[in-house]
Amino acid sequence: MIKKTRKQEIRDDEKDLGFGTRLTAASTRLLNRDGTFNVRRRGLSFWRTFDLYQHLIRMSWPRFIGVILLTYTVENLLFASIYVTIGVENLDGVVGQTPLAHFAEAFFFSSQTITTLGYGRISPVGFWASAVAALESMLGIMGFALITGLLYGRFSRPTTKLIYSEKSLIGPYQDGAAWMFRVANVRSNQLIELEVQVTFSRIEQLEGGRKVRRFYALNLERSKVNFLALSWTIVHPIDADSPLHGTSPEDLRDADGEFIILIKAFDDTYSQTVHTRSSYRYDEVTWGARFTPMFEEANNDQNVRLHLNRVSNCERAELPPSMTRIPGKANVATKL
Amino acid sequence: MIKKTRKQEIRDDEKDLGFGTRLTAASTRLLNRDGTFNVRRRGLSFWRTFDLYQHLIRMSWPRFIGVILLTYTVENLLFASIYVTIGVENLDGVVGQTPLAHFAEAFFFSSQTITTLGYGRISPVGFWASAVAALESMLGIMGFALITGLLYGRFSRPTTKLIYSEKSLIGPYQDGAAWMFRVANVRSNQLIELEVQVTFSRIEQLEGGRKVRRFYALNLERSKVNFLALSWTIVHPIDADSPLHGTSPEDLRDADGEFIILIKAFDDTYSQTVHTRSSYRYDEVTWGARFTPMFEEANNDQNVRLHLNRVSNCERAELPPSMTRIPGKANVATKL
Amino acid sequence: MIKKTRKQEIRDDEKDLGFGTRLTAASTRLLNRDGTFNVRRRGLSFWRTFDLYQHLIRMSWPRFIGVILLTYTVENLLFASIYVTIGVENLDGVVGQTPLAHFAEAFFFSSQTITTLGYGRISPVGFWASAVAALESMLGIMGFALITGLLYGRFSRPTTKLIYSEKSLIGPYQDGAAWMFRVANVRSNQLIELEVQVTFSRIEQLEGGRKVRRFYALNLERSKVNFLALSWTIVHPIDADSPLHGTSPEDLRDADGEFIILIKAFDDTYSQTVHTRSSYRYDEVTWGARFTPMFEEANNDQNVRLHLNRVSNCERAELPPSMTRIPGKANVATKL
Amino acid sequence: MIKKTRKQEIRDDEKDLGFGTRLTAASTRLLNRDGTFNVRRRGLSFWRTFDLYQHLIRMSWPRFIGVILLTYTVENLLFASIYVTIGVENLDGVVGQTPLAHFAEAFFFSSQTITTLGYGRISPVGFWASAVAALESMLGIMGFALITGLLYGRFSRPTTKLIYSEKSLIGPYQDGAAWMFRVANVRSNQLIELEVQVTFSRIEQLEGGRKVRRFYALNLERSKVNFLALSWTIVHPIDADSPLHGTSPEDLRDADGEFIILIKAFDDTYSQTVHTRSSYRYDEVTWGARFTPMFEEANNDQNVRLHLNRVSNCERAELPPSMTRIPGKANVATKL
Repeated sequence: MIKKTRKQEIRDDEKDLGFGTRLTAASTRLLNRDGTFNVRRRGLSFWRTFDLYQHLIRMSWPRFIGVILLTYTVENLLFASIYVTIGVENLDGVVGQTPLAHFAEAFFFSSQTITTLGYGRISPVGFWASAVAALESMLGIMGFALITGLLYGRFSRPTTKLIYSEKSLIGPYQDGAAWMFRVANVRSNQLIELEVQVTFSRIEQLEGGRKVRRFYALNLERSKVNFLALSWTIVHPIDADSPLHGTSPEDLRDADGEFIILIKAFDDTYSQTVHTRSSYRYDEVTWGARFTPMFEEANNDQNVRLHLNRVSNCERAELPPSMTRIPGKANVATKL
Repeated sequence: MIKKTRKQEIRDDEKDLGFGTRLTAASTRLLNRDGTFNVRRRGLSFWRTFDLYQHLIRMSWPRFIGVILLTYTVENLLFASIYVTIGVENLDGVVGQTPLAHFAEAFFFSSQTITTLGYGRISPVGFWASAVAALESMLGIMGFALITGLLYGRFSRPTTKLIYSEKSLIGPYQDGAAWMFRVANVRSNQLIELEVQVTFSRIEQLEGGRKVRRFYALNLERSKVNFLALSWTIVHPIDADSPLHGTSPEDLRDADGEFIILIKAFDDTYSQTVHTRSSYRYDEVTWGARFTPMFEEANNDQNVRLHLNRVSNCERAELPPSMTRIPGKANVATKL
Repeated sequence: MIKKTRKQEIRDDEKDLGFGTRLTAASTRLLNRDGTFNVRRRGLSFWRTFDLYQHLIRMSWPRFIGVILLTYTVENLLFASIYVTIGVENLDGVVGQTPLAHFAEAFFFSSQTITTLGYGRISPVGFWASAVAALESMLGIMGFALITGLLYGRFSRPTTKLIYSEKSLIGPYQDGAAWMFRVANVRSNQLIELEVQVTFSRIEQLEGGRKVRRFYALNLERSKVNFLALSWTIVHPIDADSPLHGTSPEDLRDADGEFIILIKAFDDTYSQTVHTRSSYRYDEVTWGARFTPMFEEANNDQNVRLHLNRVSNCERAELPPSMTRIPGKANVATKL
Repeated sequence: MIKKTRKQEIRDDEKDLGFGTRLTAASTRLLNRDGTFNVRRRGLSFWRTFDLYQHLIRMSWPRFIGVILLTYTVENLLFASIYVTIGVENLDGVVGQTPLAHFAEAFFFSSQTITTLGYGRISPVGFWASAVAALESMLGIMGFALITGLLYGRFSRPTTKLIYSEKSLIGPYQDGAAWMFRVANVRSNQLIELEVQVTFSRIEQLEGGRKVRRFYALNLERSKVNFLALSWTIVHPIDADSPLHGTSPEDLRDADGEFIILIKAFDDTYSQTVHTRSSYRYDEVTWGARFTPMFEEANNDQNVRLHLNRVSNCERAELPPSMTRIPGKANVATKL
C-alpha cells in the first residue's frame, strides 16, 4: 500500500471525478480497454434509459439488416391477416383457391403496398380494404423515411479508429525513466489537433488504515500534436513529481494501479470532434522496454510506409537504477 | 433584505446578463426547473418568431404521428374533391354508383397517387385528371421527403438527459458549510468534458431603498470533470467570499434567491456539444443535509451499479454554527 | 481627418485584417447591415466559385418550390419527346388519336414513371421504351433523394435571427460617455454563451498626407454573456484609451467611421455555433441618447414579456461635456 | 548542413510530431501541396482501413453517378437471371417468345420492381416469383435510402476552398526580411475566425554527424484574423529568433527545408469548423519579392473587387543585406 503523498490534500477534491474514493475492490477495472465504463444503470424504467435510435445506429450491419427484414416480414404477416379477415373477395385479382393461397396472396399484396410498389394485379375494392391499404402505404412511407435516416446516421458517424499498443511500457527516458504507450490511426481519416489526458488511479491507505481510491493527472512530455500522420508515442516522465516515482511493479499491482486515457481529436474527414478512451491496468505495463519504429522510408517511391501491425512492437531497454525493479517478478520486454 | 456587499460595484456591470436589475417581483422565477426561461416574446408577427421545423421536431411522438395522419387525410379529402369536381368519368376503373361511393373511390385513388403506390385499377384519363394526378404525386414526393427529414431530425437530436436532485442542499463541508446539488446521466450516452456554471440571483435593497436584482457567479469546488460515469455532486463552499455567507433560510426567501445552473458537455455518442439548464429557488434548498451515495460495487460481477432513483437521496447532517439556522422555519433534511 | 494616434504603430500590423489600409474611398461601406461583405469575386470561372447546394438551400421557399416544379415539368417534356420519338405504339394503353394527345399521354406517362407512381394503364413495351422508362425511374429516385437532402438541409439550418437596434447610440455612461447598441433574439431558439467583438474602422491621414484605413478592436464593458433571455445592450465606454475619445460627430463622418460587429453564439436548439455580423456607419450613430427597456414584468401571470418591436427605442440623454458635441449638426435622439 | 541551434534541445521533444527525426531522405516531401500526407498504411487488412462511405462521398460526380448506374444495371441483370430461372411463366403479362426477349422482359420487370415503379403490365404470380419481388422491392427501398444519404452527405460537406499563392516569398519587411505566402477564399462561403500555424522542417546534422529532421513552429506577425473577406498574407518575420535567420537559398535546399501550413477556420455557411493544409518546399520559395494587391475599389459601384487569379502575383523587391543572397542561384522574383 502506498502512503499519503504530498499531493493528497490537493487531490482530495478530485474524489468526485465520477468514480469516487470508495471504489476499492481491487478486482474492479474502472475503464475497459475499448473505452466503455464498468457501470450499469439501475433504478429507472428501461424506457427512460433506452435510446432506440442509438441502438439501431450502433448495432452491427448483419444485425441491422436482419432487424429490417424481420420487421418487414412481421408487418406483412400482420397486414395479410387483416386483409384475410376483411375478406379476400375485397382484393380484386386474387386467383388462389385455398386459404393458404389466399393468405400468401394477401401477404404479397401487403408487401406491394407497403413498398408503394403497387403492381395492381391485385388491388383493393371496397371501403375497408382500400382504407387499410391507404394506411399501410402511409406506414410504409414513414418506415422507409426511418430507414433512410438510420442508414444516413450509421454512415455519417465518424469511424475514427485509433489502435493502442497492447501494453504500455516503462522504459529509459533521458536520464531517468518514463511510462509510455503508442497510438496510430487505422483509418485514412485525417486527425487534427489531438489532445491527450492521462489519469493515474490507485488505491491508497490513509493513516487510519482506511483505503481510498486516488486519481492523479499525469504530466506528459507532449499532450498536444497538430496532426497524427504516422504514430504518436505518449510519454509520462517519471520524475520526482510523478506519483509513479519510486514505484515497483509489486507496488503497482498491490495498489490496483490503472492508467485512464482520454484522447480528443478533430476528424477532418467528418468535420467532427471525436474522443477515444482506453486504459492500461497494472498487468498491462511492461517494465524495461522501448518502442521500435512503425514506419520506414521507401526507396523506390516517395511515400513513407506506416506498418500498423507494428504498433505494439518494442525492444528490451535497461531501466536506470532509480527505478526499483525486481527482475523475477516484473514483466519482461519482448518483441510482441 | 440584503445590503450592498463589497462585490456590488463589480457586479453592477453584470446587470445586462439578460434579465436586468429591474426584475424585482418576488413571485417571478427566472428559469424553470426544466431549463426554459420565463419569457414571452411579443411585438413581432407570429410568423417571424415561429419555427415550424423546431415545432415538429420537438413535439411528442403521438402528436407528431397524429399531425402526419391528419395531414394525409385532409390532403386526400381535398384532392378527392378536385377529382370529383373534374368528374369521376375521368378516373378509369371506378365502379361505384352513388356520389358517396364515387367520392370514396376518388379518396383512395388520391391516397394511391400521393404515396406513389399507383395500383392502376383506377387511373386518370384525360388532361385535367392526369395533370392533377401528376401534381399530386409530385406533392407526395415532396411531402415524404419532408417526413424523412423530420424523422431524421427527431432521431438525431442528442437525447442527453441529466437528472438533477430534486432539492439542493446546504450541508457541512470541511470546516464550514457548502451549497450543493447532484446530477447523473440517465442515458447511456457518454458525456465528456462537463463544465458547470452556477449563477446566484437575489433581490437587494440599495441604500436609497430601491430594489435591484443582482447576479453572482458562484465559486465551485470543481467546475469541470472529464467524464460523468457515475454521479457528480457540484459543491459551492460558503466561505467569506460567498454571497451566501451569513445568509439564513429567511434571508434567502425574502431576497427571492435563485440558483441558475448551466451545464455544458460533449455528448460523445452524438458527437455534439449539449447544454442543460435548471434552477433551484429558495424553497428548493434543504438546510442541514448531505447526499448519500448512488452507486455500489457489485460482489458477484465486476460492474459498478448506479442507482438513478437515488439521485435525491440525502441524510441529515449538522451544519456548523457559523451558518445561521433557525430550526423551526428551515426545511429539514429527509430521506426523499 | 484624424492624426496618428499613439496606437498607430501597434495597429499597423492589423492592416491585413481582410480589408487592407488602401480602402479609402469614403463612400465604400465595408460590411452591409445584413452582415454580407461588400466584395465581389472575379478572375475565376463561374463554376469554380459557384456553390449550387448553398444556392438551393438559401433561396426563398416560393422560389425553391418553383425551381422544383419547373424542373419536373421540363423533365417530363423532355422524356415525353423521347417516348414520342421512339413511337407511341411502344406505350401500351395509349388511347389518344392526335399527335397532341399522344404527346400529352407520353407526358403523363413520364410523370407516372419519374415519381415511381406507375399506374400501369400505360406501360412501355419493347426494348427502347422499357429502357428509357427504367432510366427515367432511376433518375426520379435520384432526383427525389436530392429533394430530400435539400429539404432537410433547408430545415436544419439554424434560423438564429438577432435583431439589432436600428441605430447605435452615444450616451452617458457612469461619469463619461459610451457607444452602445442593442440586440435581441427574435426566435425562441435558446442562445448560449454569446461573445461579441466590435471593430472600429476609420480613415486616418498619415504625416506624409497619405490616407490609410485603420482598424481598432473596441474594449467592451462586457463581451460575453451566458444566455440571451431578454435583450443585450453592448457598451463600449469612451475612455482615454478609446479611439473615439474626443471625437465629434463631424470627425466621425469625415473619417468614414464604421463599427463592425461580430456576434458568436451557441444555438442550443440546433446544437450549432452560429455567427451574425452587422455594422453601423457614422450616419447610424445617434448622439445623446440611451435605450429604454424592452421588457416588462407581467402582473397577471409569472412571465416576463419581451417586446421585440421596442429594440430601437431610446430616449434623449445629456452627454457629459467631455464629449465634443455640436448640437445643430449631430443626430438628435428621438423615440423611434 | 545546418549546425545545432540554441533551440535544439527544446525542439528535441517535438520529434514525435508525427513524422519523427528519422525521415532524412532528402527526396521525401512530408506534406503534398493539396494537404495530403505522404504516408501509406500497411499491415492491416484492406477492410479494416477502408471507409466505403467516405470513398463514395469523396469521389467525383461523374464517377459517383457511374457507380450508381452500374450497380443498378448489375442488380437488374442478377434479378432478371433469378426470375428467368424461376420461370417466366410466373411473370404474368410477358409477351416475348425468345429466351432473349424473356430475359429482357425480366430485366425491365426487375427495374420496375426495385424502383417500386410497378406498372403491373408484368406482375409476379406464384410464391417464389412473388417472394423474390417482395425482397427486391425491399432492397430497392434500402438502396435508395442509401442514395439519399450519400447525396446529402456529398452536398452537405463544406466546400471551403482556399487558394494559396503558387510560391511563398522571402521579401523585405520593416527593417529586415520576412517569409510570406498569401491565401484567398475561392467560394462565397463566409470564413470566420481563421487561425494559421506554420511549422518549418529541415534536416540538421548533429555534432556526431548523424542527420535528424527538426521541426520549428514559426512566429507569425498575425496568426488569427476575424474574417477572410479579401486576401490574407501570412508573414513570418526573419528575426534573430527565426530558424531561417542567416539562411541562404543553398542552405534551404541542402537542408531539404519545408514549410508545413495548417489553417483552421469556421465556415459560417455550413456552420462547421474546417481545416486546410498545404506546404511549400525549398524550391517553392521565391527570394526577393513581395505580393501585389489582389483587390481594387470600384469606381462605378460601391463594391470592392477581389481578383482571385492574382493570388500569386508579386513584384521584385530588394532584400536587405542581412539576408545572405547569392543572385545567380536563387529564384528571381517574376510577375507570375
